[in-house]
Amino acid sequence: MRTSIATVSLSGSLTEKLTAAARAGFDGVEIFENDLLASPLTPEEIRDRTADLGLTIDLYQPMRDVEALPEAEFARSLRRARHKFALIRRLGADTVLVCSSVSPLAVDDDALAAEQLHRLARLAEDFGVRVAYEALAWGRHVNTYDHAWTVVEAAGHPALGTCLDSFHILARGSDPKGIEDIPGDRIFFLQLADAPLMAMDVLQWSRHYRCFPGQGGFDLSGLLAHVLRAGYRGPLSLEVFNDVFRQAAAGPTAVDARRSLLVLQERTRPALPAGMALAAPPAPVVPTGVAFAELVTPDVVPVAGLLGALGFTRTARHRGKPVDLWQQGGARVLVNTGPAASRDGTALAAIGLESPDPAAAARRAEALLAPVLPRRRALDDAVAAPDGTEVFFCAPTGSPAPSGPPAASTGPELRRWTDDFEPVDTGAPAARPAGPGSVSRIDHLALTQPWHQFDEAALFHRGVLGLTGQESVDVADPYGLHRSRAVTNADGSVRIALGVGPAPTDDGARVQHIALATDDVAEAARRFRAAGGRLLPIPANYHDDLAARHDLDAEELAVLRDLGILYDRDAHGEFRHCYTETIGRVFFELVQRDSGYRGYGAQNAPVRLAAQHATGRPGR
Amino acid sequence: MRTSIATVSLSGSLTEKLTAAARAGFDGVEIFENDLLASPLTPEEIRDRTADLGLTIDLYQPMRDVEALPEAEFARSLRRARHKFALIRRLGADTVLVCSSVSPLAVDDDALAAEQLHRLARLAEDFGVRVAYEALAWGRHVNTYDHAWTVVEAAGHPALGTCLDSFHILARGSDPKGIEDIPGDRIFFLQLADAPLMAMDVLQWSRHYRCFPGQGGFDLSGLLAHVLRAGYRGPLSLEVFNDVFRQAAAGPTAVDARRSLLVLQERTRPALPAGMALAAPPAPVVPTGVAFAELVTPDVVPVAGLLGALGFTRTARHRGKPVDLWQQGGARVLVNTGPAASRDGTALAAIGLESPDPAAAARRAEALLAPVLPRRRALDDAVAAPDGTEVFFCAPTGSPAPSGPPAASTGPELRRWTDDFEPVDTGAPAARPAGPGSVSRIDHLALTQPWHQFDEAALFHRGVLGLTGQESVDVADPYGLHRSRAVTNADGSVRIALGVGPAPTDDGARVQHIALATDDVAEAARRFRAAGGRLLPIPANYHDDLAARHDLDAEELAVLRDLGILYDRDAHGEFRHCYTETIGRVFFELVQRDSGYRGYGAQNAPVRLAAQHATGRPGR
Repeated sequence: MRTSIATVSLSGSLTEKLTAAARAGFDGVEIFENDLLASPLTPEEIRDRTADLGLTIDLYQPMRDVEALPEAEFARSLRRARHKFALIRRLGADTVLVCSSVSPLAVDDDALAAEQLHRLARLAEDFGVRVAYEALAWGRHVNTYDHAWTVVEAAGHPALGTCLDSFHILARGSDPKGIEDIPGDRIFFLQLADAPLMAMDVLQWSRHYRCFPGQGGFDLSGLLAHVLRAGYRGPLSLEVFNDVFRQAAAGPTAVDARRSLLVLQERTRPALPAGMALAAPPAPVVPTGVAFAELVTPDVVPVAGLLGALGFTRTARHRGKPVDLWQQGGARVLVNTGPAASRDGTALAAIGLESPDPAAAARRAEALLAPVLPRRRALDDAVAAPDGTEVFFCAPTGSPAPSGPPAASTGPELRRWTDDFEPVDTGAPAARPAGPGSVSRIDHLALTQPWHQFDEAALFHRGVLGLTGQESVDVADPYGLHRSRAVTNADGSVRIALGVGPAPTDDGARVQHIALATDDVAEAARRFRAAGGRLLPIPANYHDDLAARHDLDAEELAVLRDLGILYDRDAHGEFRHCYTETIGRVFFELVQRDSGYRGYGAQNAPVRLAAQHATGRPGR
Repeated sequence: MRTSIATVSLSGSLTEKLTAAARAGFDGVEIFENDLLASPLTPEEIRDRTADLGLTIDLYQPMRDVEALPEAEFARSLRRARHKFALIRRLGADTVLVCSSVSPLAVDDDALAAEQLHRLARLAEDFGVRVAYEALAWGRHVNTYDHAWTVVEAAGHPALGTCLDSFHILARGSDPKGIEDIPGDRIFFLQLADAPLMAMDVLQWSRHYRCFPGQGGFDLSGLLAHVLRAGYRGPLSLEVFNDVFRQAAAGPTAVDARRSLLVLQERTRPALPAGMALAAPPAPVVPTGVAFAELVTPDVVPVAGLLGALGFTRTARHRGKPVDLWQQGGARVLVNTGPAASRDGTALAAIGLESPDPAAAARRAEALLAPVLPRRRALDDAVAAPDGTEVFFCAPTGSPAPSGPPAASTGPELRRWTDDFEPVDTGAPAARPAGPGSVSRIDHLALTQPWHQFDEAALFHRGVLGLTGQESVDVADPYGLHRSRAVTNADGSVRIALGVGPAPTDDGARVQHIALATDDVAEAARRFRAAGGRLLPIPANYHDDLAARHDLDAEELAVLRDLGILYDRDAHGEFRHCYTETIGRVFFELVQRDSGYRGYGAQNAPVRLAAQHATGRPGR
């Protein structure tokens, strides 16, 4: 279906907004009145600029406090409307949004509202304009979609229809099923916005916290299905008032926005008859494991030292580039000392996800607007995540290539990314034997996101990669509140913890970490320390509190205390974890996740963050 | 009374928090458990550090989910309590906060709760510890202060009392009058927090939006009066969970916090019998006018050009420093080209407020923790506002010194700040004659605040300067949402609009402006332009919209359009205003405020902000 976005959803000048919408692939825009008023462009110039960008103007909005007024007031409404209808024609648009009155003068009289809307529609018709009447959730007398439709029906004029806005409908808890009772051709417009489920004043909620579909808690695909079953075939248009988007760069926000509409259409399709023109990106290919994490570093010595102390062995080197493969059990870390490394110090630059069909996974990502990265040889399919992390889709590392490509795949025969590496024997000590305290695999990756892109990142990892989101949690850092939200596949073999700091003050200090799974974290920590590794010191007060809260035996407590191991427990199991020092922007975690524990030790994060600050290496 | 602050109200490590609290003059602290857990100091070291800083530890907090539990669970509570009571003794403290249970296991049985709290108190007594039981507003069964007191009373143990928290009481709309029915010696602790009045989930409201007394919408002095009438004589302690304070520097936040308690005590005094040991800073001395605004600039030529085009004449020069006085009617602008000027480009560095008793105004400011600035000669009394703006208290400019100093004043005989200036005749054109379009005075000053200090700034201007706060308004900038809140004296002769940008990304770009009052803004703008001044261009779309919204006559509309004059109207009067270009961080506004209009044209601010962005000189 056609996609559209209200200019109020994006930051910047009107020109910047239009450009961002066009580049993200939208078909049209809603012009928000304030954006027009603040623009130095004439309406005709806006019309031309929009057309040059390949966009249509699908709606002009809003007109407020138009109807259900005493006659003298309504005369002023008509006077205003005459100006606005003329303006709309100059813009080359043909539909205007009228919000239900919030005026203290408005009368609770549907017949009066209908009669005045009829007169408004007659005037609109003279200008070739259509009026879409919408119930604001806080409208004075009309504040539900069915009430608005009753008034529109009573007005009985072909230039008058209704506009549905998912926020206003769902925030009030209205049952959207009744939408199917409205004739589709009388639904003149559909505005879509999601929002986190919050118990708060609906006006404040609407003005500050709306977000793109899939980023909040509303059932937007359910609502969309009702609207499409009613017969609506107009654009799907996003109208999102959000304090963060207002200050984020318009370009990425527009991409995030259009991606949300593509995923929404995909999710809505199964509920509808075949043949609807809904977007159908290639199906999700859920990753089945972490192939590797890739560090870039301008100074390989401390990184090699840290990996060595953690029990990793350098096993192979890339045939064409200065990239080493370090391995331990099923955990693989690439260390890249090439040109990309010089910019930011040591950082986690890329992750490899094992996929049953890497090419299809990449096609989906591309269809969902992820920037495709230039191909390397066997590391074929890679895209950029919103935070710039490179995401590689790889054939499963340990197994041979599948005997035949999956039906959906038309790419070349699957090769393994490891084919680009050749074994090394550099005289390093032999690999540490597997056994208690050895690392078996990467448990999770923790990626701190740019402040403006936390919601986008969550939608990317869920919508594009097919991972499942867990609950968002607040974490108190000594210098501000962080949020964290994990995404995971069904068996937990891929876990990514997305984090965000308190405010956009420290983007350059975004820290990431790699958590390594072991079946015996105490032994792993001991070996690490014996090999010269430095563990993050944890205050004794923390372990005193553990003793108060849990009946751990004294011997274990002494071990946890000695090694700075943190402890958590949920309804399903136990979690023990400790941290290395930070190099550049990266540190490692050793985790022992007992059967069923689902979290990431968020309860301990404030202590960890404070300890990292105390070492002068903040861990955010 | 003694003042205290919970460590959770301040950012940083525990050491940083304690230091900030001591420097701001607090007598004690509440140690928030998480701050202790995250600290590398042992409890004994914390005890010693606190004592060295002259602070007492007035409370350890919180213990959660202690009571009204099945016996096996309660046994675990006692086990935990034994550890915590020992810890509290190591800290040298003697009171612990117990919050009413939120556990899903908690039973709705007051007798059980009382019986278990009695047992807890018996154990506490063995350690010499007192238990202060508090109703959380979201407690599972006990969630009002009177219910908590009923349980405490039923428990009947001298080591058990109640803790009152203003947020939990007022957020639920409880009537605080019943506090007077609680014996004062059974109120073991009083926590104070204000909050903006919001309709939202009370837990989220409490955890993220609390603020210091006087910064929100609760009647804290009413509540405090009830608590003191009940006989409570313990510390007044601030417990504020606030996302902004969490990331602000601890030092200024602690000063802001203690200032709020001083003002709160002052406001509560009249409701109580004489002889209560409440703080009594010198009474407010409300300013009666704006003496001057002082610009510092490293490049005087464009500033002089702008002032000249606005109709100002350079009338005098400071006897000892490179500071010129520019004057027009009752508007006075100082231009300082001295050493302070070189740092930040052209900026509004100081304001002079006319005061009926400058020395007393300064004594109040000092008593309320405003940093006193080194004295100049006749510009005697000056303090720094939270944003660093220097605030001078001056004798009224136009009148002779009062015949005798007010009773409260013991300073030297009042002199006028203008005595430091001697007239100049630099061959500049003669002063523009008064008449239509001339500037009569400074209408208002607009000062953008550092992001972390908006609430502090409002409290400073109200509490310290004695101005009255108006409503806070949101203003949409193309790149984020601003907030603005004006403070004013009764007759509007002093108006200061405090603004804040969307996020702490651009502190260096904080822009300020000086609004000049005229009785004919069109004529003033014409003269300015004729003198070579550049007006901020306003889009034609804005004036098209004015035509739609208001029945301005065509001739006036043409004038507004030609000169880029903006228009607003409220229930009381009309407002016409336009803007100059920006120099450094400063621009000027010309305003024609008709009888009774109370605002600042906030409705037009988005258009102004967008126009300033379009010129490449953002006006935030």
